[in-house]
This record gives sequence, C-alpha cells and structure tokens, in this order.
Amino acid sequence: MSTTEISAAYYKGSKQFEIAKIMAPPPLAGEVQIRTAYVGICGTDLHAFHGRMDTRIGCNRIIGHEMSGIVENVGEGVRHLKPGQHVVVRPLAHCSECPACKSGLQHICHNLKFLGLDTDGAFQQLWTVPEYTVHQIPESLPLECAALIEPVSVACHGVSRSRLQAGENVLVIGGGPIGLLIAMVAKHAGGNIIISEVSEARLAIAKKLGFKVLNPSQQDIVASVMTETNARGVDVIFEVSGTQPGVDTMTKIAASRARIVMTAIHSEKRPIDLFQFFWREIELIGARVYTHEDYEKAIELVTNGAIDTGTIITDVGSLENIQQAFEALEGNPTAMKSLIKVADW
Amino acid sequence: MSTTEISAAYYKGSKQFEIAKIMAPPPLAGEVQIRTAYVGICGTDLHAFHGRMDTRIGCNRIIGHEMSGIVENVGEGVRHLKPGQHVVVRPLAHCSECPACKSGLQHICHNLKFLGLDTDGAFQQLWTVPEYTVHQIPESLPLECAALIEPVSVACHGVSRSRLQAGENVLVIGGGPIGLLIAMVAKHAGGNIIISEVSEARLAIAKKLGFKVLNPSQQDIVASVMTETNARGVDVIFEVSGTQPGVDTMTKIAASRARIVMTAIHSEKRPIDLFQFFWREIELIGARVYTHEDYEKAIELVTNGAIDTGTIITDVGSLENIQQAFEALEGNPTAMKSLIKVADW
Repeated sequence: MSTTEISAAYYKGSKQFEIAKIMAPPPLAGEVQIRTAYVGICGTDLHAFHGRMDTRIGCNRIIGHEMSGIVENVGEGVRHLKPGQHVVVRPLAHCSECPACKSGLQHICHNLKFLGLDTDGAFQQLWTVPEYTVHQIPESLPLECAALIEPVSVACHGVSRSRLQAGENVLVIGGGPIGLLIAMVAKHAGGNIIISEVSEARLAIAKKLGFKVLNPSQQDIVASVMTETNARGVDVIFEVSGTQPGVDTMTKIAASRARIVMTAIHSEKRPIDLFQFFWREIELIGARVYTHEDYEKAIELVTNGAIDTGTIITDVGSLENIQQAFEALEGNPTAMKSLIKVADW
Repeated sequence: MSTTEISAAYYKGSKQFEIAKIMAPPPLAGEVQIRTAYVGICGTDLHAFHGRMDTRIGCNRIIGHEMSGIVENVGEGVRHLKPGQHVVVRPLAHCSECPACKSGLQHICHNLKFLGLDTDGAFQQLWTVPEYTVHQIPESLPLECAALIEPVSVACHGVSRSRLQAGENVLVIGGGPIGLLIAMVAKHAGGNIIISEVSEARLAIAKKLGFKVLNPSQQDIVASVMTETNARGVDVIFEVSGTQPGVDTMTKIAASRARIVMTAIHSEKRPIDLFQFFWREIELIGARVYTHEDYEKAIELVTNGAIDTGTIITDVGSLENIQQAFEALEGNPTAMKSLIKVADW
C-alpha cells in the first residue's frame, strides 16, 4: 500500500474552508482507511465554522464526522473489516485509563478525543480511523441515508437514557435535526410525542412528519400539555433547545417521576426550579454522544425505515462547494441536515 | 368506646404553643387511636413555629408527626392492628384518584395531606389516624428510639432513590439531623461516606460518629474530595443543605454518571451548571418523604442498631414544656433531634 492523492477540505478559521490536494498515507496497524461517501454537517461543525472552537481545533483542520463510506484498506492486525465493506464511524477515541473508562463508560472518557475535531475528520476522500470506531452497515442501506447514523445514535442514546416505556407521554423541546430524530426514535419506542418549537418553518416539518406540535411563543405550553395529557403531565422530556425558556418549561410540565434528558449544551448556568424536582420526584439525566450499542440500534432503525431520512436530509452538496453549503445553513430554519457528497464515484 | 379527656399542644401562631385539655373522640371505622409516647421536633415543625406555614396550617393546629406510641383503640373494620401493639405512623394521606396515585406513587399524591400539618398531629396524648398509615414495631424497640423512624425513613428513601452500590463514594452536603441519618443509612448500604458541613459543632458530632468530614468554609472541598477519591469524584451526592454553595459543589465533585439526590427544599430557583450534567452524564433525582417500604426498612435499621439513636437524640422534653423545647432549638447547631415525651406513663 502506498500514499494516494486525495482532496480534503480544511477549516482555516474565520468561516473559511480551503480545498487542498494531499497525500493520504496508508493505514497503520489497527487502522482502517475508508473511502468517504457522504458527510453530514453537524451543529458542532457549524459551531467550528463560526470560529467558536478555534482554541480546541486550530485553524488548519479537516472537520466532519457524520459519515458513511466503503473500506478502502486495512492496516496490520485488523481482523473484523475488509476492503469493500460499507461502514460508518463512531468518532470517539478513549484513553482506557481514566475513571470513566475504568467504569465501562468509554464514551464519556475524561480524555475523550472526538475524531473530526481533535483529529482530522471526514471532509476528505480517504479517512483513516482506529478499527474499533468502525461499524459495518448493510450494503442495501443507501450510503446517503447512512450518513445520518451518527445523529440518529445521539437520539438513540437520549432515548435509552430516558428509560422510555411504550405508552408514555414525551415532550421534545426544540425541533431541529436532533429534536426531530429524538422524536422519531421515541415514537418508534412507543412514546406519544409532542414537539415544542418556536420556528414556524420547523414546526411545519415536524407536522409533516406526523407529530403533534406546540409553539410556546404562540400558545400557553403548560396549559396545552396538561390538556393533551389529561393533567398528568409529560413522563419523558428531552431538552434539546439549549435555552432558558426550555429549562423553565421542563419542570413545569413534568409528570410525577418524569425523566428529563439533557441533550442540549448549555454554555451558561441556568436558574432551575429544584423544588419541583423534590416535589414531583423528577429526574434530570445527562446524555452525551453514544455507545457502541446506540450505534448498532441506529443502524437498525435507519435500515428498517423507522427514520424518515428523506425529510431530514434537505440538501446534498459537493466537497468542492463545502464553503457554500456551510454558508447556506446560516439562519435557515428549513434546512435540517445538509450532506456533503465526498465520493467521486 | 367514649370520648376521653387528654392534653394537646396547639400551635397558635407567632411562635406560641398553648396546652389545652380536649376531648378525644373514639376512632371511626378504619381508624386507629394511638396513645402517643414520643414525638420528635422536625425541621418542618420549626418552620411552622416560625409562622412560615400559617397560610397552610392556620393558627389553631396540633402539629407533630415523628411519633411512636401504643394502640389504644381501633375503629370498626380494622383487622391488622389491636390495642397494646407498639406502632409508628407514616403521616401521609393520599387521594387514590390523581395521576401520581394511579401510577402507584401515593407518597407524592398530587393532593397529599400531611398528617400533623394539614390535619391535627401527634403533640397530643391520643392521636387518631387511618389504619393504612400505621406500622407495627417490635416491643423490644424503645419507644424513644422509635420516634426517629420517620426521619430515618426520609434517609432510607433518599438512599433508595440514589441506587447506591456497596463500595461507592458518597458525599452528604449538610450535616444536620437528616444529613447524619442519610450518612448512617448510606454507610449501612456499603457507601464510603464524606460529610460536608460548615458548622464546626455539627462536624464534631459527625466525626464522633466516625465519618470523614470536610468544612467547605475552611478548605477547598473540590480538591479534598478529588484527593480522597483518587480523582474519581463522588458517585452519589445527597444535597441536604438547601444552599447555593451546596448546589455549586454538587456538580463540581460528581463522578461520571454520578447520582445527585435532591432531598433539600430549595425555595428559590438556583443557577445550575447543566453542562456538567451533559458532560459527565450526571443524574439529579428528586426524593420526597417515603414509601411503605422505606418505613419497613427504617424500622429494621433502627431495631438492628444501624442508626446511632443516642447521638441523634440530643434532648427529651415534656408536652407541658413544648414551648421551651422549640425555643431551645433556635440557632443551636449542637441540637440534633429534640423529642417531646407525650406519654404520662
């Protein structure tokens, strides 16, 4: 195996990508080289594009991690994968040494490296990653759909953390891509879903998907939820908005012993009504990324059609036009998930 | 059965009790009349004494609910109890109709009546309560110790909600009576306990009980906890302080997937670091009062000597001197639990 010339998109700081021709080295022992098919643009990628992660990722980084592809080469010692297999990558590298790893919680390793942020990522034609991060997918699953498996895994992880039971009432606060995917996964698990969202454009998409929706800027969300649930309140709440109104709502509409899953990243402290936690014995449960099992579940759900990928994927661009694809997402509430087709086949 | 003249202590508002002679009616169908032995003074009783619950309880109320006694009479249809049996009361009356009751969560019934606040309580010589609130206790258990079963049940409920496993690290934030009882119950369940408390007088009591202690006003609690736990952090945290510093500490010292049990009543919203909940997948779990099972567990623990009742009970007064007993608790950090001996036998 030798080096191969490929195209790669580098984030250079200040909302700029640069396409470069680079030489991709062959995979080392334990590594798998993947020919990238599609890569989704994650909210985190947009965050990086806006320069908010420069300290962490620098200004010469290939980002991208929501990917699908086909194994091109495998390094020495790789036993479970071979060229030609269709795959996705779970972009988490753990240390094996920290207290979290030693407790079996590798996905929240204290020294976690996120592939495509802390290392170069998938916006390049050949991406090389450790074998243990690679999941095989059925060849029948379109690679375009498979690029959604990473965000679907986030949704599977949240639903798994919620201990949702069939028949329970669910409120998803925030109707962006992750909110909609959580709604789909929770519906598949038997939940009665309501989505709360302030953007009418996004509400229209949620409605088209068949979900009950509420717009808290237009109606009294507490009264509406109580009517909808016969005064019981909501058993499982997903806080995906990252906003103070979202945090205020979550304790007001919680049923007794409700579980609130914190999927959103709140960058500042939020005033919270702890009395309601005491009074109704509510639980707040943090949910970050995903485990091996969440990935396998996501592959199953996307393959079996439980996820409406057609509604979620709103745009497919090319690697050459990555700059325009990122710019097109700015302030565009109807854009759900934009994919970059990296494959030239 | 006929009415009987008894002594009762009425809270009359403005930090005043009045002892009155009243006629105790015989128990109605399904009721049990108990000759009161001992009644503990709860933090809630002190709260009422300070006039902060006048709207709820009025100013002509017999309070008191941490009690032990002996069955005097039983009403029609009472099958499981008979005169002479030693008992304690789980002072919760539920409605059976609300969403919580219908989900089997009678202890957090939406229309819960707390006996001794919403109804007349145990600071009287004969107390009549519904049969289902009464738990039989062994005659070998001193009635003085049995008056602790109600607060021990609060501790049992918190530890049960925490899903504590033997060998896990535990931090109890707040070393008052409930904090110490939680520490004892958690220690009995196999936890490695540290108690955080700012009062040196209370820390001395905690130390005397054999617990590791920290004073966050004197030392860097995060650094100390991390040293003590080999940088792992704490697996189970009980927030019993009801303070903002307690809330700030709980997220800082939490291990990955730590469970924080909210036992304290926070009367105002608290700024909380939700990012840590996400990052470390922490859980916050509300814990309010107790279930039937918690009471049975508490009876077992107090009977078997797992609770150091001698250290917790710091004073025993008489019903006639209830006014002085309440006044003596004001600003007295070395007072843990004061009992009122109501029995005249």
